[in-house]
Amino acid sequence: MKTLVVGANGQIGRHVTQMLKEEGKHEVVAMIRNEEQKNYFESKGVQTIIADLLNSVESLKQTVEGFDAVIFTAGSGPKTGPDMTLRIDLDGAAKMIKAAEVAGVNRFLMVSAFQANNRENWNEKIAHYYVAKHFADEELKRSELAYTIVKPGGLINDSGTGKVKVGSKDIIERGTVPREDVARVLVSCLNKKSTEYKSFDLISGDQEVVDALDEL
Amino acid sequence: MKTLVVGANGQIGRHVTQMLKEEGKHEVVAMIRNEEQKNYFESKGVQTIIADLLNSVESLKQTVEGFDAVIFTAGSGPKTGPDMTLRIDLDGAAKMIKAAEVAGVNRFLMVSAFQANNRENWNEKIAHYYVAKHFADEELKRSELAYTIVKPGGLINDSGTGKVKVGSKDIIERGTVPREDVARVLVSCLNKKSTEYKSFDLISGDQEVVDALDEL
Repeated sequence: MKTLVVGANGQIGRHVTQMLKEEGKHEVVAMIRNEEQKNYFESKGVQTIIADLLNSVESLKQTVEGFDAVIFTAGSGPKTGPDMTLRIDLDGAAKMIKAAEVAGVNRFLMVSAFQANNRENWNEKIAHYYVAKHFADEELKRSELAYTIVKPGGLINDSGTGKVKVGSKDIIERGTVPREDVARVLVSCLNKKSTEYKSFDLISGDQEVVDALDEL
Repeated sequence: MKTLVVGANGQIGRHVTQMLKEEGKHEVVAMIRNEEQKNYFESKGVQTIIADLLNSVESLKQTVEGFDAVIFTAGSGPKTGPDMTLRIDLDGAAKMIKAAEVAGVNRFLMVSAFQANNRENWNEKIAHYYVAKHFADEELKRSELAYTIVKPGGLINDSGTGKVKVGSKDIIERGTVPREDVARVLVSCLNKKSTEYKSFDLISGDQEVVDALDEL
């Protein structure tokens, strides 16, 4: 599958891009915002395409044309403030979902947040972020795309262990998960058709990724 | 119709509440956030109910139970920052829409923003506000409620003239409109079944409100 990694220059995005490249099963393209971000990916032999989530749906449609899958790992982050959370994490995601639909992309994988679907379990300190993720996820579920929504717990920079715990039916305990493991899960989902139309929480655990995904 | 004005203590909300009270056709209740806001409405003989848009859907359902209509004029305003725009203007609206649905409320009138439905016409300076309004409107359109979405141009505090211009099919020019006229339009929509399932832009113009609404 020709796969576009949106937010490729982010921490999860870099892991995903590198793993897909190393695995070699899919053609991977990193969506980046500007020329300065290009060197990193070129040094790894990864193709890039320059586009911005502030662009129009029509423009993003041209970006995503010809792709089979999108992995959306973009987020404005805490440095730019909640106005950009609205414009990137919510509206940017919604535009990319629409663009993927009209461009005929089939598959869409989304990095969301632990329990984004349950308001009572939102982290009150970043409730605005949860609002954005919640509505972006809803847009994706309502779309025609074969979605997978991965809702990780607290993201940490430790090396991945490859061992996780997932929760879709029952609510699992709150926990953390290394960004590298989130990336591993995304790549595994891309390879696993049974994860289509699924949405699940993700924390560190003691199951191999593929085994955990089998139980969804 | 027993009508709940959400955001009753805001500028448009106060106009709406007072007009409904003076008109005397409908039972009007002002939804306010705290006891301190009560005096103003009691002095006008308007009933109040205390609730907060940060409350849960379940709690808001209890608030809205027994009402026939909701007029949503709430907004966090520029003073509290974009995080509250996400939590009130978007998520607060979405929760109230859901609460109204499950409580069996039929009618829902929303104050949105000029061209909130067209990203290319958003005001770039407050694009994050437009994102919130856009997604709140979408939630309402997708609901089972008999909606009317009023999308006013630049809000000003001049006295109302009772003369407006509305646009639903064609895009009308950008303009301003006194908050009092926005309130007049909302009250007229409540009385006019033909405005159900309609969404329109609103600026000052030269038509009487009822005539303008007839042309939607």
